[in-house]
Parts: sequence; C-alpha cells; structure tokens
Amino acid sequence: MTTLTATAPLDVLADFPAIPTGWAYLDTAATSQKPQPVIDAITRSYDTTYATVHRGVYQRSADMTLAFEAARRRVAKFIGGQENEIVFVRGATEGINLVATCWAQTNLKPGDRILLSQLEHHSNIVPWQMAAERAGATIDVVPLTHDHRIDLDAMEAMLTPQHKLVALAHVSNVLGSVLDAKRAAALAHNVGAKILLDGCQAVPRLAVNVADLDCDFYVFSGHKLYGPTGIGVLWGRYDLLDAMPPYQGGGSMIDRVTFAKTTYAPPPGRFEAGTPHIVGVTGLHAAIDYVDGISLDRIHAHETALVTRTREALASLNSVRVFGPADSAGIVSFEVEGVHPHDVATILDEGNVAIRAGHHCAQPLMDSLGVAATARASFGVYNGAADIDALVKGIERVTRIFG
Amino acid sequence: MTTLTATAPLDVLADFPAIPTGWAYLDTAATSQKPQPVIDAITRSYDTTYATVHRGVYQRSADMTLAFEAARRRVAKFIGGQENEIVFVRGATEGINLVATCWAQTNLKPGDRILLSQLEHHSNIVPWQMAAERAGATIDVVPLTHDHRIDLDAMEAMLTPQHKLVALAHVSNVLGSVLDAKRAAALAHNVGAKILLDGCQAVPRLAVNVADLDCDFYVFSGHKLYGPTGIGVLWGRYDLLDAMPPYQGGGSMIDRVTFAKTTYAPPPGRFEAGTPHIVGVTGLHAAIDYVDGISLDRIHAHETALVTRTREALASLNSVRVFGPADSAGIVSFEVEGVHPHDVATILDEGNVAIRAGHHCAQPLMDSLGVAATARASFGVYNGAADIDALVKGIERVTRIFG
Repeated sequence: MTTLTATAPLDVLADFPAIPTGWAYLDTAATSQKPQPVIDAITRSYDTTYATVHRGVYQRSADMTLAFEAARRRVAKFIGGQENEIVFVRGATEGINLVATCWAQTNLKPGDRILLSQLEHHSNIVPWQMAAERAGATIDVVPLTHDHRIDLDAMEAMLTPQHKLVALAHVSNVLGSVLDAKRAAALAHNVGAKILLDGCQAVPRLAVNVADLDCDFYVFSGHKLYGPTGIGVLWGRYDLLDAMPPYQGGGSMIDRVTFAKTTYAPPPGRFEAGTPHIVGVTGLHAAIDYVDGISLDRIHAHETALVTRTREALASLNSVRVFGPADSAGIVSFEVEGVHPHDVATILDEGNVAIRAGHHCAQPLMDSLGVAATARASFGVYNGAADIDALVKGIERVTRIFG
Repeated sequence: MTTLTATAPLDVLADFPAIPTGWAYLDTAATSQKPQPVIDAITRSYDTTYATVHRGVYQRSADMTLAFEAARRRVAKFIGGQENEIVFVRGATEGINLVATCWAQTNLKPGDRILLSQLEHHSNIVPWQMAAERAGATIDVVPLTHDHRIDLDAMEAMLTPQHKLVALAHVSNVLGSVLDAKRAAALAHNVGAKILLDGCQAVPRLAVNVADLDCDFYVFSGHKLYGPTGIGVLWGRYDLLDAMPPYQGGGSMIDRVTFAKTTYAPPPGRFEAGTPHIVGVTGLHAAIDYVDGISLDRIHAHETALVTRTREALASLNSVRVFGPADSAGIVSFEVEGVHPHDVATILDEGNVAIRAGHHCAQPLMDSLGVAATARASFGVYNGAADIDALVKGIERVTRIFG
C-alpha cells in the first residue's frame, strides 16, 4: 500500500453532515463526528419506535426491549465477548469507576498494589487512586520507553504477587501508542493480577477481540466510536462480574426489594440501575454497524497512513517536535518550539483546522514529557490528505507569526 | 374549569411524531414521548453543531461549551436553583446514588437514621440501604395515610435528632400522590436532618421551585420530562455539594492530577467525570423550553382533570379498584378484580392502549397495598379524553373476557 493510496479518503466524508467542506476536523480522539446512519437511528428511536425497555407489557415496549438487547448482542459480537458480559455505562470513565468500586471492594486489601502506566488518561488514574485510598492499597507506575510506549519489560520486572490489578490504555489518547495488550495480559496473569484495558482510543481504530487479548475488563465510550454521547460499554469476564457487588441501587438491578432485605439481579442487570440510555444503546448499535461496514482493518490502515504522512510532514518543519511512536494509531501529538499549544490551536482554527491543545487529561504524561501541554491532531474515517495539508499549512503560518 | 374543557387536549398531540393516530399512550410515568422540537434539537446537535465541550480551543467546541452551560443555566432557572448547583447525571437514579454515596460518606455515622416512606421507588430505597449498610445506619419507613399519601403526621412523630436524612418522592410514581414537600422539608429541618426529594414524576407535572420548597437535594430524569434518555439532574445546595467528596474519578472533575496527589474541581464539575452526555444536555434544554412553553400550571390542570375523569369512569365499573388519592398528579393505579394486571395490560394493548402493569419498581408499596402488582395509566401533555375512553372501553373488554 503506497502512502498516496492509503491517505486517500475512505470516501465516507459525505456521510458526515456536521463536517462542512473545507473543515479539517482533527479532534476525533476527543469525540468523533457522527455518520448519517447513526443520526438516523437516533432520530428513528425518538420519532417512531420510542418506548421504555424491560417493563412495558405493550408491543411498542416489547419491541424496544428487543432492539435494546439486540444492541447488547451486537456489542458482544463486536468485541468478542458474551452477551451477559456487556454492561451499558455512561462511558469509559464510568466503566472504570465501576470496576474500581465494585471489583476493588471485594478484591483489594491493605498492602495490595495496583499497576498503572505513566501515560494513562485521568479516568484510568483517579478511580484507582480513590480505590487505593479506600482499600489501603498502593499504586505503582510503569514508565515509558524512549519512543513513548508503555515499557512492558519494565512492567515485567515490577510485577509482584502483591499486584492485584493492572490497568492500561490499549491506545494512548495523547500519543497513539498501541499497547501489546496480549503480552500485558499474560504478564499480569503471571502474577495472578487481573487486567483492565481502557479501549477508548483502540476500539475506533483497531479490531479488538477481548477473548484473543485474554484480558479481564475492557471499557470504551460510544461517542468516540461514531456513536451517541452518554453511552459506553464495560465488558467483564462473567465470573468476575458475577462475584461483584452492585454499583448503583435502583430499578432493574434488583431481584426483590423489601425494607428488611434486598437481593440483586445477576449481571449485567445488576450494574444497570435505573432507566437506561435507551437511545444511546440503539445509536451505538448503528455506530458499530457503520464502522464494521467499513472494516476496522481498513480504518486502521487508513489512520496509520495518515499518521505516517503527518509525522513526515511535521518532521520536515524545523521548529516542530513530534511525540509518540512512529506507528501511532491515528493520533499525533506535537509542539511548535516556543509557541504555547493553545496559540497553535487558535491559529490553526483561524485556518479552519480543529485540533486539541492541552494536557489531554493526562497530566502525569505531560510531566513525563516535560511539557505543560501538547498540540494533538487525531484522525477519523472522514479525514484525508487535504486535512493534513491544511494542518501543515496552518503550522507554517504559526511559525511565521511567532518566528 | 369544567371537566370538559380541562380534559380537552392541550392541542400538542401533533408535536409528537411517535404517537400514531388512535394510540392511547398511557405510560408517561415510565417515560414520556418526545416532541418534535426536542428531536430536532438532538438531531441538530449531531448533524450541525457537534463537538466536545470544555476542552476544545477551536470555535465549534467553544460554541458547544456555551450551549452546554446555557442548558445548565436553563435547568437552574427551571427549578429555582443556582447554576453551580446543577449536576448533570444519567438520571434520577444516579443522582440519588451520588448523594447516598458522597454525602453519606462524610455525614452518616453508626447509629444515625435515614427516613424513607412506604411508597418510594426502588431507586429511592436501595441506594439508602447500601449507604446505611456502609455507615452502620438504620432506615425507618414512614407509613401512608388511608388515601395513600405519605403520612406527614406520622413522620413528625417519628423524626428524632438521630435522623440525618429524609428522602421522599415528591410525586409517587405508582399513585400520583403529591407530597406536601414544604412541610416535609420543615419537619426534616426541625430535627436537623437534610431532605432529598425524588422529583421524577413531579417535574413534568407541577411547577417546582427548590428554593420555595426549602429542600436540600432534588433529582429528576430528563426522559420523563419529554427530553432525551441518559440525562438527568441532581440539584444540591452549594454548601452541601462543596463539602462532598467526588463520586467518580476521571477527566473534568480534577484540578490537578499527579500520582502523588490529586486535587478536585469545585462543584458541579467535581461530580461530572468524563465526557458528559453533551447531546442529552442540549436536548434537555429543548425539553424544558417545550414544557415551559405550555406552562406547568396548564399541564398540571390538564393532567389533574384527566385523572378526575379517569377515576370517575373507573369507579363506575363494579370490578375495578382504584388506588391513590383523588387529587393524584397524572397517575392512576388500579386493579381489575380477579384479573392479573399483566393480562389487563395485554388486552388493553390489543385495543391500542398502552399502560404499565407490574410492581413499578415499588415492591414495598405493593406489599403495603396487599397486591403483587397494579395496572397503571399515566398521562402526559399529549393525552386527552379519547385516551380515557379507549382505556375504559378496554377495561370493559377485560371484564367481559374474564367475567
């Protein structure tokens, strides 16, 4: 595959009504734009088929329940899990908090250790800090390699039988570094630890199969997978979920409620208290159909080619420093020497190029890189060579203004 | 106002595309159908203005952030709170769980007592059972009056200085009983307790002002207020929120993260970890505009008239027992003697009438009523006399079939 063909658009830009002609949307790692089939599925759920789920005796509600549970099966198939292992949550953040609360509650003791990495998103740090504080456990931090990957050799040397849980980003939201998740899982299991993978940036960019990876928990957000906001997925091995106490109390998660004693439903219902985000779920189904229709292998090849082209173009600019490994999955973080990333982003925005600037909810990684912030361009299925050209042109303008 | 005028439709049925002609949708207490302006707002947020909030430097994201925070101000105005007291949650269930976790964590001690009522929804029981178990606290249950209201005289007699929290439904989801929330709040405060009101059924049916009620926490769900699924509101007095530890850890809720020490943002951000349900929030804004456009006083009068007419019609049928007080807000629970409520609902469905049958996530109330389940008809802005006629006709058919 030549760079030229590979960076040709996937020919899906026309599916995205919110991307006007000439707008280089390069913030897909924050949230992806939505294709028309997803928007249509959401609209149809509200204007044609709308009803509650799991409770109504009438036909409309029975139909909506079928659609809701069909979406659960679709998610399970998409990531290689079982239907009863799919817990619908608000997003990856809630998924991690759920595990850090419920799994930790019965599995973490004083003196236990949790292993994270230096490049984790705050959502994969703070919940574990809270869990560690509750349990009297300690957090260890795996360093990065020179090219900004999680250093699995270092991790292997650090792991002890005191480590009960390893939680790592499958793909870094700042650098695009792809974890060798299978090796990470094997290393964790070698010492008897469980492993949770934060798949937010992986699921839209790589074909993921939790059975192949042999991990224990996997989380991702729908809105980063071309789906609706407010919906995400926690996948967990059924035996682990089944042994966990509930997260939130309320309707649907119970077996029987009395003031004397309440008993809980089996997973996944136990972890889905209250009326779910019904339309988030049906919209997520449409989003998965959409990306599978393109194929994640094609998406991955496309984004990898975009990254290669971007890194090459940025490397040719003297004043730009690029972070992360060469084989980053769809994400390029960089800095323009002497210019604050916010100024870079503001000037790029004037040229109709949308990137993110900041700490990307990864302050420990920023500390490790020795910067307060980076500029980040991240790609989606709708991006193409023209977006990279616009980015480079914008950065050249930045260097002219500040040069 | 005569019954005839009052039960005339509010002339908004045409706003609801998911209600086909001739369908009597009487399950609004489970979830409301959505008016076109809400659906349009949701669609527009996805197909025109979509971007992340709070983080992007580019214009689209800045605009979406303005819209997101404008919605927060709109919610605050709608219920009479302050902007920084509005926490966006998935729904009322999460709102209650948040208080039962975070407020309870620093305010409940062994020996303390929590006061609930016999008619609470499971979402206002189970979180408190979990909180009580964690804290070593005890739950007391206020009984109901003969006409199925929360008995505030009994509550007054039960309250002691050991009671730290009172949590009550503003309107019962099964019976429509309206709480004298102002008196309940005063009684709670008399012994130094805080009061949380579950406003799920109140907010779509009554004008609510938390300052007037003088309560401490108030929760409701967007999807019951003609808004999107997956979004709800926790309102709390700022000083109470500010003294509470965070709920979930992640992006947006932090001030500064290091592996050594993490500090948290002030409310409401402290309680909004992760990318929020952006489009749920913009859709909720549209829903509030919609109901305010009709006016809650008109909605309340309309639904009260529908209830009166329904109760009168059902009372004229020999075999029907009606629960709840005469001035129920938009909700009528009943049973047809000798017929399981599920069978009632199924036969009604054949006649294009959608009601709910079951325990309505209120098993302790069912126990108190001496039934396993009830049939429940609940009204919304789109209902009218024709729906009641269809309901009554359907019940007559039920009694013929089972008679």
